[in-house]
Amino acid sequence: MHYFATLLVILTIHGSVFAQKPRARDIGIPFTGTPGKYNAITDVKGLEVGYSTIVSGQGKNVRGKGPVRTGVTAILPRGKTNNPVYANWYTLNGNGEMTGTTWITESGFLEGPVMITNTNSVGTVRDAVLKWYVKTGWYKEDFWYTYPVVAETYDGFLNDIYGFHVKESNVFEALDQAKSGAIQEGNVGGGTGMMCLGFKGGTGTASRLVKVKDSTYTVGVLVQANFGRKSNLTIAGMPVGMELKDTLNYEFKAPPSYQPGDGSIIVVVATDAPLLPHQLKRIAARVPLGVGIVGGRGENGSGDIFLAFSTANPGAFQRDKFTTLVELPNDQINPLFEGTVQAVEEAIINAMVAAETLEGINGNKAYALPHKSVINLLRKYNRIK
Amino acid sequence: MHYFATLLVILTIHGSVFAQKPRARDIGIPFTGTPGKYNAITDVKGLEVGYSTIVSGQGKNVRGKGPVRTGVTAILPRGKTNNPVYANWYTLNGNGEMTGTTWITESGFLEGPVMITNTNSVGTVRDAVLKWYVKTGWYKEDFWYTYPVVAETYDGFLNDIYGFHVKESNVFEALDQAKSGAIQEGNVGGGTGMMCLGFKGGTGTASRLVKVKDSTYTVGVLVQANFGRKSNLTIAGMPVGMELKDTLNYEFKAPPSYQPGDGSIIVVVATDAPLLPHQLKRIAARVPLGVGIVGGRGENGSGDIFLAFSTANPGAFQRDKFTTLVELPNDQINPLFEGTVQAVEEAIINAMVAAETLEGINGNKAYALPHKSVINLLRKYNRIK
Amino acid sequence: MHYFATLLVILTIHGSVFAQKPRARDIGIPFTGTPGKYNAITDVKGLEVGYSTIVSGQGKNVRGKGPVRTGVTAILPRGKTNNPVYANWYTLNGNGEMTGTTWITESGFLEGPVMITNTNSVGTVRDAVLKWYVKTGWYKEDFWYTYPVVAETYDGFLNDIYGFHVKESNVFEALDQAKSGAIQEGNVGGGTGMMCLGFKGGTGTASRLVKVKDSTYTVGVLVQANFGRKSNLTIAGMPVGMELKDTLNYEFKAPPSYQPGDGSIIVVVATDAPLLPHQLKRIAARVPLGVGIVGGRGENGSGDIFLAFSTANPGAFQRDKFTTLVELPNDQINPLFEGTVQAVEEAIINAMVAAETLEGINGNKAYALPHKSVINLLRKYNRIK
Amino acid sequence: MHYFATLLVILTIHGSVFAQKPRARDIGIPFTGTPGKYNAITDVKGLEVGYSTIVSGQGKNVRGKGPVRTGVTAILPRGKTNNPVYANWYTLNGNGEMTGTTWITESGFLEGPVMITNTNSVGTVRDAVLKWYVKTGWYKEDFWYTYPVVAETYDGFLNDIYGFHVKESNVFEALDQAKSGAIQEGNVGGGTGMMCLGFKGGTGTASRLVKVKDSTYTVGVLVQANFGRKSNLTIAGMPVGMELKDTLNYEFKAPPSYQPGDGSIIVVVATDAPLLPHQLKRIAARVPLGVGIVGGRGENGSGDIFLAFSTANPGAFQRDKFTTLVELPNDQINPLFEGTVQAVEEAIINAMVAAETLEGINGNKAYALPHKSVINLLRKYNRIK
Repeated sequence: MHYFATLLVILTIHGSVFAQKPRARDIGIPFTGTPGKYNAITDVKGLEVGYSTIVSGQGKNVRGKGPVRTGVTAILPRGKTNNPVYANWYTLNGNGEMTGTTWITESGFLEGPVMITNTNSVGTVRDAVLKWYVKTGWYKEDFWYTYPVVAETYDGFLNDIYGFHVKESNVFEALDQAKSGAIQEGNVGGGTGMMCLGFKGGTGTASRLVKVKDSTYTVGVLVQANFGRKSNLTIAGMPVGMELKDTLNYEFKAPPSYQPGDGSIIVVVATDAPLLPHQLKRIAARVPLGVGIVGGRGENGSGDIFLAFSTANPGAFQRDKFTTLVELPNDQINPLFEGTVQAVEEAIINAMVAAETLEGINGNKAYALPHKSVINLLRKYNRIK
Repeated sequence: MHYFATLLVILTIHGSVFAQKPRARDIGIPFTGTPGKYNAITDVKGLEVGYSTIVSGQGKNVRGKGPVRTGVTAILPRGKTNNPVYANWYTLNGNGEMTGTTWITESGFLEGPVMITNTNSVGTVRDAVLKWYVKTGWYKEDFWYTYPVVAETYDGFLNDIYGFHVKESNVFEALDQAKSGAIQEGNVGGGTGMMCLGFKGGTGTASRLVKVKDSTYTVGVLVQANFGRKSNLTIAGMPVGMELKDTLNYEFKAPPSYQPGDGSIIVVVATDAPLLPHQLKRIAARVPLGVGIVGGRGENGSGDIFLAFSTANPGAFQRDKFTTLVELPNDQINPLFEGTVQAVEEAIINAMVAAETLEGINGNKAYALPHKSVINLLRKYNRIK
Repeated sequence: MHYFATLLVILTIHGSVFAQKPRARDIGIPFTGTPGKYNAITDVKGLEVGYSTIVSGQGKNVRGKGPVRTGVTAILPRGKTNNPVYANWYTLNGNGEMTGTTWITESGFLEGPVMITNTNSVGTVRDAVLKWYVKTGWYKEDFWYTYPVVAETYDGFLNDIYGFHVKESNVFEALDQAKSGAIQEGNVGGGTGMMCLGFKGGTGTASRLVKVKDSTYTVGVLVQANFGRKSNLTIAGMPVGMELKDTLNYEFKAPPSYQPGDGSIIVVVATDAPLLPHQLKRIAARVPLGVGIVGGRGENGSGDIFLAFSTANPGAFQRDKFTTLVELPNDQINPLFEGTVQAVEEAIINAMVAAETLEGINGNKAYALPHKSVINLLRKYNRIK
Repeated sequence: MHYFATLLVILTIHGSVFAQKPRARDIGIPFTGTPGKYNAITDVKGLEVGYSTIVSGQGKNVRGKGPVRTGVTAILPRGKTNNPVYANWYTLNGNGEMTGTTWITESGFLEGPVMITNTNSVGTVRDAVLKWYVKTGWYKEDFWYTYPVVAETYDGFLNDIYGFHVKESNVFEALDQAKSGAIQEGNVGGGTGMMCLGFKGGTGTASRLVKVKDSTYTVGVLVQANFGRKSNLTIAGMPVGMELKDTLNYEFKAPPSYQPGDGSIIVVVATDAPLLPHQLKRIAARVPLGVGIVGGRGENGSGDIFLAFSTANPGAFQRDKFTTLVELPNDQINPLFEGTVQAVEEAIINAMVAAETLEGINGNKAYALPHKSVINLLRKYNRIK
């Protein structure tokens, strides 16, 4: 019962002191590059993130009653302002879902928030976003339609996923409470019930400041990390997963068709650099480089879907008028590629460092990454003093 | 009030005598190629189609009350048997939604039914499909997840689309009542509230028998046709839309951002020819040729998403075993391309011929294609005697 | 020997009176939309087209000696000025080649001319373009590399294609002599040895003026048409191919693996509308609609590759500086789709109307489309008076 | 002049004792996974590799005379037997060229050898492959056409690339002398003039044996490695490039538009596992994970194009007959993903370990990776004893 007390504590401290929980670089894990103020996707100005975390019950699963370990994450590119951003996306392994993508490909625009939840709640979240548009007067005209962007990863080992516990109200909560500034990591929002590279996973974030000519741009990343196998876990280049192979990690009876590596990772990359849609595809297609560095292989059972958008060019979306845009030259894009790869790596490790041990349905349990052991290993390898 | 009486009649005759309604070739419109027994997607053996048609109310729209003019269409590639089929998809214009596509691309398989509904009910239908899996014991194991394939077109000119009238029960109805044999067309299922090429649109179907070496294969097509502008309507090569330019067609106050050509077309192509996933992409990518022939242009406001699957190779999907497959040689694929284009053309015209004049919210009205005028025009052009 | 005399005449009149040869609309074939001044791709200001036509010999083929019926076509988006244009591309059927496309996809830019030749001369043309860059000082810096864009269609039924008769000098000729204004059609340039929809094919062009808000834009199309089967030939919506089924068309001994529909069509779409790369993909993906209308099916043996570029935003390509661009709103793009489809249709028919009967290797012969019979058929169908 | 003596020695030992040159794991660099007999792409049975290495001259460059530091690499999936293999491809960054790809996408087949050369010789190599088909009677019928697959990376810092020194005879040499068994690495074939991650690059290879159910399959990789920046070079997870930042590496005057990271990597993955074309796309799309692990970022100036093929299903390609195939279930594909990533990593490091310091045009020089320093660093980091 220990885990649940922990969770209550987490929920209690919600919103105020959570930032004191140490992050990956706080415990000494080395990374390259320069993060922004919050080392978070919210370093991209105007962007807001909101969560709804749903945790209740314990013990044997009763479908529809729980235990429940799930949630919803909302990312609003320009906060509560309805103003589409240039966007594009890439899939490393498609065993997952992100709705609304054909229109992103066609139009070059992401027209609303990006939502992340569990596999079975995509529908509920999708339609609830439409209702939220009505509720908030997001669109001015009566005739419109849009395609909510909702992604997911699977939390059915810890969560009563066929109980469909995500409700409209959770979607509204995540959207309404979205804010800028420092954001929570680990067992929060859609990331609540995640498992990653052999340990407890969850929501993680990071950012990089990159220099392009005379300007400094921000690349911010948020991940919902639920992928990979323990033997591949690599931190600061070290084979941590192999070294920790006897450490407690998962306790659950694997069903016959389960395979290590089942899971998924959703990555959202935001930037204020003026990139056009085809350039944002390039950004999204660099995400696998960061995923591979920590040990992801785009496994068959994984839904690895990556979305990139740019908050620059605030006047880009028009129905009638021809507008003036700025484009970053292709020849200057390398720092943004580098920043993306660096921030993806750190965001995943941040998710794992922040995630706490969690027991879910039927006593299934995912253990937190053991910080101390990791640090000892990095010392052994002279990666830190 | 005339329209509503008509509708009641339609609902009454549901399921029994609908087949007596004349189809495009019954009224004399010429097509090329040889259709199967039902000239329907159900000519592909084992495939089943089900509808839930939701029609109620009249007059001024009250959000949540209606009038309601919508529905759900279900296509089950191998009927109620859970056995994935090879599949692939293509988008002509992406202003639409089809969920579940990244996994089709990645795996080569469509793992369940294809659902079509209105734009705002995609979420409800998606999650309801998961519940239907539970209800019917579709999957044998407790651990699984899958990505329902749900497509949509917009019926908000006739339907209280923000009333979210499609419910779980409608999804179950469409799935449970799905059957083989002759199927309804026009204002049924997801196609209930459609508007197409200047007239009332809806659900349509057609098929072709094609000869490949010594074998005969079937290509079956089902469309939910809601696309195009009147001036482009082309029947049997004739500029019917231009000729009918003064004919009654739509009565509604267009909102400021509405443009002729807004709408969508979802096309599902089924075949029993042994095609692999990359070959099914080829089939899906030929659908635009049929859409163009009747006047579609993949307009900006249109979601033109096309899915193709093959019911051959019933043992293709395996988790553990290596199976033996048959592949149709690329050099023999042309008749399937031709059959696809022909069946797409006829299915769209069938949808328009079958669709009856329908009044929806706020007195908005879409008139049926005037059969007699069309025939007169074809006579004028010596396309028929 | 009659054919060859004809050819000599053509070559003689080269450059001066060719425009007097009647085009499709001159002989009465109806089309929709408004063409530009030349009804040619050169209606896009600054764009230049050049040909090298290689015709020699007659009788039995001797590899390396001929008969030769081939050539090279060059399209220079901004004439002899080195200034990349936004571009993108789409493949309907990939049994063909267009080099240089991965960089177009990645960068959004077409950095030089588009070349079209026969299947076996792609390599020669490709490297010769690099040499032409050196020769003309196209690039200012010593360190650079680029990827020439060279497409092809197969002329091996009329041309000694394994004789590799296209030389560096032909590539230079096509490039150096490229010009704006009226351009030749039919048996010229890369289109010299083409066969299309049952008759002699070749090079064709057309354009449309389209209105977007207060501006008028040009869409210009050039095709190298070598595709399709006679039974599908459709002109002004009429089944001309079926009606002409007993008309002389091809005289050659088909090799065992030959199939009607083998061939290819390369389509280049140019516009001065300010479209971004992802919007140009949309343009390229509408080309099949025009190809389908005249009877193309993207047959297995066909290489149907389509490139679209925009000459707007002349300052778009920069290495260092951030530039200002204009983008046409997606909501205003429909007229450009429509213009593209219309111009593709007319350009193909123009190619066929202009092409003269040609005898090539081993007495193989492709007959010209019989203008008079076509007109009589259109009269029969009341498509013209 | 030291470098050139070295080169003469290399050329002398050609074909006999080259295997004695130490490879990455010989000098102690640790890798995961089990290589095949040769730890080379030639571990895939029947596959042959051939090179033509062109090295001559020294000193100041005279265009057309040299110095020349270039070559051609040929990979024949089934040796000299004309029998297409299933294939697919992926591009991480498209600043490069691989011809013949649209037909691979469309048909699912690679119909001949894969050639790799320098950027400016793609055309020569392409057409020469066609001539080699004629010369060797590769095709039985007179009517055929195919699209040679030719890739490239840029060697213009060391090689007189605008001298176009690759000739038909070099292409024939690479093809004719192709063989199975152990193959050379480093400054050979198309890899002769490469530069990679701050040091001399070149051709590299590696393989993995992977277990799938009761079968063992081989994944073989060959790279032409010419990419990345020194600061990113990562070996066995260690930041070797940062540590060696003061080590001699390149000596050349960078032209104004040059950027670290310019270059390219071509990767060919071969396997005998029975994968279908859409599964081979999945393999190709995992290559970036291996590239990222050693420090690649898909930089803007890089052409990172990856081709994967399967030699299983030798009867897959048919013109007339329906054949029987075997498909490896998606659920069993993970070991092949893992093996691909591992082999890509090792092949790149192998290329660098094998490559010797090379001086090219104008005294430009790329230094070999200093083996001893690398080993010392790995010791410092306790990655080896």
